[in-house]
Amino acid sequence: MSKHRAALDALSGLTFAKGHGTGNDFVLIADPDGTVALEAEKVAALADRHHGIGGDGVIRAVPSKHLAEGQALLAEHPDAEWFMDYRNADGSVSEMCGNGVRVFVHFLVSEQLVPLEPGQTLAIGTRAGVKHVTRLDHGYAIDMGPWSYIDPELAQEAASDSVVEAAGLQDPRPALSISMGNPHTVVPVQSFEDLAELDLTRAPHVEPAPEGGTNVEFVAAFEPMIRDGVGRVKMRVHERGVGETRSCGTGACAAATAMRAWAGTEGCDSWLVEVPGGLLAVDFLAHADGTEHVVLAGPAELVFRGTLG
Amino acid sequence: MSKHRAALDALSGLTFAKGHGTGNDFVLIADPDGTVALEAEKVAALADRHHGIGGDGVIRAVPSKHLAEGQALLAEHPDAEWFMDYRNADGSVSEMCGNGVRVFVHFLVSEQLVPLEPGQTLAIGTRAGVKHVTRLDHGYAIDMGPWSYIDPELAQEAASDSVVEAAGLQDPRPALSISMGNPHTVVPVQSFEDLAELDLTRAPHVEPAPEGGTNVEFVAAFEPMIRDGVGRVKMRVHERGVGETRSCGTGACAAATAMRAWAGTEGCDSWLVEVPGGLLAVDFLAHADGTEHVVLAGPAELVFRGTLG
Repeated sequence: MSKHRAALDALSGLTFAKGHGTGNDFVLIADPDGTVALEAEKVAALADRHHGIGGDGVIRAVPSKHLAEGQALLAEHPDAEWFMDYRNADGSVSEMCGNGVRVFVHFLVSEQLVPLEPGQTLAIGTRAGVKHVTRLDHGYAIDMGPWSYIDPELAQEAASDSVVEAAGLQDPRPALSISMGNPHTVVPVQSFEDLAELDLTRAPHVEPAPEGGTNVEFVAAFEPMIRDGVGRVKMRVHERGVGETRSCGTGACAAATAMRAWAGTEGCDSWLVEVPGGLLAVDFLAHADGTEHVVLAGPAELVFRGTLG
Repeated sequence: MSKHRAALDALSGLTFAKGHGTGNDFVLIADPDGTVALEAEKVAALADRHHGIGGDGVIRAVPSKHLAEGQALLAEHPDAEWFMDYRNADGSVSEMCGNGVRVFVHFLVSEQLVPLEPGQTLAIGTRAGVKHVTRLDHGYAIDMGPWSYIDPELAQEAASDSVVEAAGLQDPRPALSISMGNPHTVVPVQSFEDLAELDLTRAPHVEPAPEGGTNVEFVAAFEPMIRDGVGRVKMRVHERGVGETRSCGTGACAAATAMRAWAGTEGCDSWLVEVPGGLLAVDFLAHADGTEHVVLAGPAELVFRGTLG
């Protein structure tokens, strides 16, 4: 019997959609009755690009009331009706995914599971808490919450906190580490040529090595970096435990945050981040709680619908 | 607009199936009226694993009478009703694909486009001529035609004709080159451990370098290699212009041919070749025309059906 065949046979007849946000792609399953059991081996089978459907992750759309963790969210946010049950391609549970949230909400809208007009905002449950997603004319914007320096001593003065080496990078480069809930280390490089020459098939080396690893973003600025009040950068990313990806939502947020801090351009609150899979917009908003929130906007597309079997 | 979006929009509403043979995977399209135009950019969009459906190739099932090349085949083989219009993932036209033929015929049978019971044989048109495919209880067997040495001086005595170096291979190893219509260079290694340690992310170096390149198969034998009259080997393959793949049908044929010749076991005409994506069977049959034909058998599976758009 071929790889994953038993797990796929157990899902025979399952309908799904396949979608992506800037090339970060997902298998989407609507489960309005909360009856689809997605064990790790089933998720791994669905996400397998040769033997299954293929994707960077699998997202089950399930009413919050059908999940214990969703019910806890509903107590404080009774409007977070739908829960994003996100799994990594290997079947492990994941808290959140910036690109995945857009595709998830686009799926809810396309399947007519929620009404949402451009300009309207929807609260959704995730394992990282309730997230607020606004439908745009061409895409979706998510409040990703506050950013912070990983090294608190940098709070007064943006500086480097580490040095990064990578294949194809001529010299070790200073870097700045930013938390978006998950850890990122942002490395500015001189030019688009330097960015293109990087070999990210191997993990970059970060010194001092962060405990638990880090995602590493290499960033080059357009010339001029800031035009008409908008900061403009290109980014490539090596995700910890995964390798180079076409896009990383929290990585784009971290990249804009670090470039903004390093350039001393706190006045510039709108950034465009070009990733290999497309274009993301990152905005900084003063929040009522006194922190500065990061809003990530970008496209979401459904490519096809299918039935296993 | 995101990558491949225009090409995918032009195919909106297209129905397809996705299938694989030992992990070599294909998008399959039934085109009984010969009306689906698959320009290279559309094929590349369909085969894109993140922005499209994803596959090693795209196969259109079209009646031979609708294609000029199919009509030429029909003149000599009036029973070759269906033509396998096979394209590589980059959109280029390809002659044939050993694993693809099995999946193609399984698709014809599953879509009820042809009746074919286990034990029966079907003639199909390909750009490499008419191929005969026999349905088995669990898979399909294809007559791949005659094999030959690439170096004709080896016809009397199997010997090495080249030396191969590869990352993870301790020493340069002697190799034997076999033509299955396309070129293969087969490298025996000592053990499964040696096979596992190979790093095929980079192309192996073959000396002397074959004009036009070659597919390189690394092969290790089970212990004992021949049991109950069946030869048993494990193989990893680096396909020219592609990289390491989970399976290569002609590569499995070449691997069995070379091991059989080197071991001096011409009496052993049945071989099992374990590839990373599954198990293939290779048989040698004396053909009426005086040559020795290679028959490749293996599984074919359809995983899902879908609709673009």
